[in-house]
Amino acid sequence: MSCWLDTKSWEEAQIAIEESKGVAIVPIGSVEQHSTHLPLGTDSYVAITLAEDAGEKTKAVVVPPVWYGWSPHHMVRPGTITIRPETLIDLTYDIIASLAQHGLKKIILINGHRIVNVVWMQLCAERAQRELGVTIKIFDPAYMSKDIVGELGLGPVGHAEEIETSHMMYRYPDLVHLEKAMDNPIKETPLYSVDPCYIHDTLCYVPSTFEHAKKSAEIAGGSTGCPTKSDAEKGRIYHEHLIKNLVAVVEALQAQE
Amino acid sequence: MSCWLDTKSWEEAQIAIEESKGVAIVPIGSVEQHSTHLPLGTDSYVAITLAEDAGEKTKAVVVPPVWYGWSPHHMVRPGTITIRPETLIDLTYDIIASLAQHGLKKIILINGHRIVNVVWMQLCAERAQRELGVTIKIFDPAYMSKDIVGELGLGPVGHAEEIETSHMMYRYPDLVHLEKAMDNPIKETPLYSVDPCYIHDTLCYVPSTFEHAKKSAEIAGGSTGCPTKSDAEKGRIYHEHLIKNLVAVVEALQAQE
Amino acid sequence: MSCWLDTKSWEEAQIAIEESKGVAIVPIGSVEQHSTHLPLGTDSYVAITLAEDAGEKTKAVVVPPVWYGWSPHHMVRPGTITIRPETLIDLTYDIIASLAQHGLKKIILINGHRIVNVVWMQLCAERAQRELGVTIKIFDPAYMSKDIVGELGLGPVGHAEEIETSHMMYRYPDLVHLEKAMDNPIKETPLYSVDPCYIHDTLCYVPSTFEHAKKSAEIAGGSTGCPTKSDAEKGRIYHEHLIKNLVAVVEALQAQE
Amino acid sequence: MSCWLDTKSWEEAQIAIEESKGVAIVPIGSVEQHSTHLPLGTDSYVAITLAEDAGEKTKAVVVPPVWYGWSPHHMVRPGTITIRPETLIDLTYDIIASLAQHGLKKIILINGHRIVNVVWMQLCAERAQRELGVTIKIFDPAYMSKDIVGELGLGPVGHAEEIETSHMMYRYPDLVHLEKAMDNPIKETPLYSVDPCYIHDTLCYVPSTFEHAKKSAEIAGGSTGCPTKSDAEKGRIYHEHLIKNLVAVVEALQAQE
Amino acid sequence: MSCWLDTKSWEEAQIAIEESKGVAIVPIGSVEQHSTHLPLGTDSYVAITLAEDAGEKTKAVVVPPVWYGWSPHHMVRPGTITIRPETLIDLTYDIIASLAQHGLKKIILINGHRIVNVVWMQLCAERAQRELGVTIKIFDPAYMSKDIVGELGLGPVGHAEEIETSHMMYRYPDLVHLEKAMDNPIKETPLYSVDPCYIHDTLCYVPSTFEHAKKSAEIAGGSTGCPTKSDAEKGRIYHEHLIKNLVAVVEALQAQE
Amino acid sequence: MSCWLDTKSWEEAQIAIEESKGVAIVPIGSVEQHSTHLPLGTDSYVAITLAEDAGEKTKAVVVPPVWYGWSPHHMVRPGTITIRPETLIDLTYDIIASLAQHGLKKIILINGHRIVNVVWMQLCAERAQRELGVTIKIFDPAYMSKDIVGELGLGPVGHAEEIETSHMMYRYPDLVHLEKAMDNPIKETPLYSVDPCYIHDTLCYVPSTFEHAKKSAEIAGGSTGCPTKSDAEKGRIYHEHLIKNLVAVVEALQAQE
Repeated sequence: MSCWLDTKSWEEAQIAIEESKGVAIVPIGSVEQHSTHLPLGTDSYVAITLAEDAGEKTKAVVVPPVWYGWSPHHMVRPGTITIRPETLIDLTYDIIASLAQHGLKKIILINGHRIVNVVWMQLCAERAQRELGVTIKIFDPAYMSKDIVGELGLGPVGHAEEIETSHMMYRYPDLVHLEKAMDNPIKETPLYSVDPCYIHDTLCYVPSTFEHAKKSAEIAGGSTGCPTKSDAEKGRIYHEHLIKNLVAVVEALQAQE
Repeated sequence: MSCWLDTKSWEEAQIAIEESKGVAIVPIGSVEQHSTHLPLGTDSYVAITLAEDAGEKTKAVVVPPVWYGWSPHHMVRPGTITIRPETLIDLTYDIIASLAQHGLKKIILINGHRIVNVVWMQLCAERAQRELGVTIKIFDPAYMSKDIVGELGLGPVGHAEEIETSHMMYRYPDLVHLEKAMDNPIKETPLYSVDPCYIHDTLCYVPSTFEHAKKSAEIAGGSTGCPTKSDAEKGRIYHEHLIKNLVAVVEALQAQE
Repeated sequence: MSCWLDTKSWEEAQIAIEESKGVAIVPIGSVEQHSTHLPLGTDSYVAITLAEDAGEKTKAVVVPPVWYGWSPHHMVRPGTITIRPETLIDLTYDIIASLAQHGLKKIILINGHRIVNVVWMQLCAERAQRELGVTIKIFDPAYMSKDIVGELGLGPVGHAEEIETSHMMYRYPDLVHLEKAMDNPIKETPLYSVDPCYIHDTLCYVPSTFEHAKKSAEIAGGSTGCPTKSDAEKGRIYHEHLIKNLVAVVEALQAQE
Repeated sequence: MSCWLDTKSWEEAQIAIEESKGVAIVPIGSVEQHSTHLPLGTDSYVAITLAEDAGEKTKAVVVPPVWYGWSPHHMVRPGTITIRPETLIDLTYDIIASLAQHGLKKIILINGHRIVNVVWMQLCAERAQRELGVTIKIFDPAYMSKDIVGELGLGPVGHAEEIETSHMMYRYPDLVHLEKAMDNPIKETPLYSVDPCYIHDTLCYVPSTFEHAKKSAEIAGGSTGCPTKSDAEKGRIYHEHLIKNLVAVVEALQAQE
Repeated sequence: MSCWLDTKSWEEAQIAIEESKGVAIVPIGSVEQHSTHLPLGTDSYVAITLAEDAGEKTKAVVVPPVWYGWSPHHMVRPGTITIRPETLIDLTYDIIASLAQHGLKKIILINGHRIVNVVWMQLCAERAQRELGVTIKIFDPAYMSKDIVGELGLGPVGHAEEIETSHMMYRYPDLVHLEKAMDNPIKETPLYSVDPCYIHDTLCYVPSTFEHAKKSAEIAGGSTGCPTKSDAEKGRIYHEHLIKNLVAVVEALQAQE
Repeated sequence: MSCWLDTKSWEEAQIAIEESKGVAIVPIGSVEQHSTHLPLGTDSYVAITLAEDAGEKTKAVVVPPVWYGWSPHHMVRPGTITIRPETLIDLTYDIIASLAQHGLKKIILINGHRIVNVVWMQLCAERAQRELGVTIKIFDPAYMSKDIVGELGLGPVGHAEEIETSHMMYRYPDLVHLEKAMDNPIKETPLYSVDPCYIHDTLCYVPSTFEHAKKSAEIAGGSTGCPTKSDAEKGRIYHEHLIKNLVAVVEALQAQE
């Protein structure tokens, strides 16, 4: 039977909640430009596929995705939709509160919109833990692939770069137009890097301004990084690495009393 | 090519926006108990299938669904998720504001969660029209099937009743367990009816309290109405009636300068 | 003794609360243009006279009116005052919370501003019922006169039309300038009607935009409908029909334990 | 013709706005216990009668009253209704914004609920002046009778005391039950007084806590002060003093370009 | 040992809280133009020195200052920083809530920014008393020096006038440039005064508009009053008077059970 | 002359703003338990000393500190004060907006409360950049000492550990009680680390729950890490490393047109 909550009647949901040992997964993405070779929904697809694969392996309950994220810096390209972070906090808080009321008190937020959504999720998670007595974990692919990305010879985290593209090629090949990919190699800036693997001194991440994002989008269609180096097989290894970690997080939560 | 925005790159989105003549469709549903024979996601599925069919017939741009709605009265059964209406207003407002920024200024909100979500959508629509200079239409299946429901011999609007069930049988037969359906015929109350076809004096709709909803859910698993009388063929006629109306709304908007 | 709370000392209020069996009536109106023949306060006057007549017949406690409503679409004419719906929700919530603290836990909101105010009242009523354990009924003259309006040969609900004007002629004849009334017959639009008696398919109500309201106000001074057909005697029958219904609602609430 | 905006059609309002030279008066009161001898609506009646008398003498436009104020400390007695100050700010801000849009840009807020409502009115007034380019004056009877109260031999400002009672005896004699008045003489506390005429060192006013207000209400039915010393003739002089000042404020505003 | 909370470890704080008998002092100021002879931080310095001196004499716990206040009318001069009053309410509420959780339930807010900050502090104090069960006192130098200012021959409360300047000369002589002081004598306006010692009829205080404040700042660098008449010895007497009052307030709170 | 804005008259501020080339530094800390050997104000002292030293070297304007931060997880020990993150966002936004109005449009937020405050600062920074057209940098000592901490042989970032303690020993030796320091070595948890230097897969940071923080505080007085290994000389090198980086950020901003 499907791991998705929306497919179940409430009777089936009742059984699934028991079998899940109280663990739910909430996939959260974004609808934002991903250059000329990836679809706008990339971040949501990533969250959805991670949630689904882990849900099937573990009996965690997977709830319908939050398709929209915080993407103010990508409004420079058509199709991007951005939601205020305070609204995303309230939305996700209410999802968590409803789940908790039904006994799903150990919740994993999967952030398909690497790094950016983490910020408001942290505020949401703290409030939910304090007020609702739940346990929240934030699972972000960029932070959860630090061990593998170097091994695979993939470059640093950028946007629509070889990491994301390889992953999409493995899971959603029909939605990738690799022939349209353009490279925009990441230049090192003194005292600033968004890559979680970066080991030197750095300022903290703030989304780009409109002007800055516009300039950047004009260079290579909106990519930061080298998507032409993408590879479906690396995408597979990357995906399995993430799933292994996600399953480990689910099982650790299930093992808690 | 798919009518869904999330499947497109921003270049494809740019073309789709032009071809749409500025019309976007936002499917909005709910995740709430639909008795023992329908899935929790019923309202979202309804919004999604209406949006998709009309999108394909008209070149309107269809954006990813808002899966969660305002369902405080259905928290009595496991799996229901309810979001505060003020959060839903803010979320939908931001979706509209982003679409408007890309030239999609004529927007149809499809309410799969018949009658209930209409309330916050009206507040959202007025604010968006006034502040963003957009045109918003709220398309609700219950209000848009007044002409056909009587003809088909379907009873009044309730919950998980023969209208909704017939529709689901036609579009999502695998998710319907008709053998689990239980009837809970709608009793006429003096001075109160939620059915938009009701022609007599009535108080206005307010979602049930927890206590009242609980009592009601104990009778027939959460149905109000007679789902055992459902019929896939009636569902097909009902669906086509709605699509005809929805296409008419899209085309009227496309014809506006 | 007067049914109005504001005229009583707290000792008298204490007695009145007991005698009311816990039922209070809150008249809520608007201050908005009602064409050239009706006063700006029309909607508030309607709510006040309904509340007062029913209060006197039933011992329900009547509280001072909320004079201002949600009227963004009528700002096109001088004197209209509009309040944000979220503020009206908070205001009315606090009135309800205070009444509940004194034992008035069954509350009728009378909407003199037909159809429009209903929206925010629904959100307010649900929140109050859930958080405060009260019972809220929304009494709207347009929904409560469906049975009588046809009988009287009055046209559909518009604005400052023959229904509202007849009612004012019966209750506040000095404030009506029938000689200034201008007709603006309601044209049927495909797939849209605001009249609650309308039995065909329709989109849901959203207040007009400024531009649309302006055009409309230029035609007949702000009327939608045919006020020249108004008649005080029809107003009397309409009023008594509403009072009969309102008294029935009060008595049904008083009969609840 | 009446000075009240609600009695006018929009055409009459248009003329009245011109004749007012842009000045509007907003009466703001409260519904709160006023001991056993005065009605709950006392503060609103005070604001209404001041507004009306000054409106008639000056052609200022008088708008419908805000009946409810901030009265958390009087919830100890039945019938009191208290609104959160942030809601009152938003409500009054929207009234001002609507008036300003129609050309009424010099606005006097009359505070019938002496001293207490002033606080939120100050925040509202500053925001309105800054954002809307209007001029706001806050007219409070306690601050505007400092010159006359001593002359009349009335005691300090308390609650339902001889000042307020005398005023009500002059303007609303039918609503005063002087035979029920009980005295509760104001005791001087070191470093604290709420009376605006007090000339010594003092802490600033904060509404009493529930516990404190309860104790106080048990002594003399809710009075602080000596209402038995009230006198309708003193009430008349007091009223005329306030009207003289209010007319002076209106005329000063009308004289501004 | 220092009375400042921030200098203590939590073990030392635990002892200090016990010794304080539950009394904490929160100094609150502003960063705003104080003409050409006083520093921008004047109001904060005033609050800090009062808090510190009283803290040392009484064992009240003194917490780090809130440096920023509500100063919209002083944005006309460089360096002024203004915070929305609703934010200041929330900030101070959270400080109070945290202190209360550690047993500091009798809290004095010292307002170095005379008169202006009082408004939002009153709203904050009422909410905190009602929701948190604490006791709040608002100590404002202008209200607490009514007895001494006349005696010292200092003029009325204005801005950067001889009262404030004398006080700064006594406590922070290095930050005063008396040679830059310019006089701008306070002119009596009919029916308006901001001075708490004023004994005649008056409208209530509302911060000046930008335009008005600009005109005023052009006259004497931003002073209202006669700073050239300042005197350090008068500043000393004024300071000691305030400290005597503040110590009396602390001791009265400490004496409460 | 001092780099602190509060010490300047507005005339001096005007000159300082010009000389700063538009760069301001806002020190932001916390008041929270730092075990038994460090003061509650540690995080604010760190922000203040970094801001001051860099201000003096560069002519950046340094504004008064925001003493209070987001510390819900440290409420387990007396003296901790926590502010809601949404309030901190609003407060800091208003500071930035005021600075921008005076020409200080390149602003560095220094986070003395390592890692935790970063979250709300990111939301604040994005909103300020987008709405106010300013440039915001977030300078966090933990992220800006990745290069030096390993060299100095200091352990991972915890709380009140050897990094923070060494820094305080160098800058505020009188406030450190090293004899009270207790060690609580950081144990590696699978898939979770708060240290920004951590190079392996990890979940994202969420502040501890009350229960978890309580357990932790019972072990070593509130330390996480090994403060007994602290060393003032290492503190000096660490401080100078941070100042070098902070000066570089200021100068880079000053060099922008």
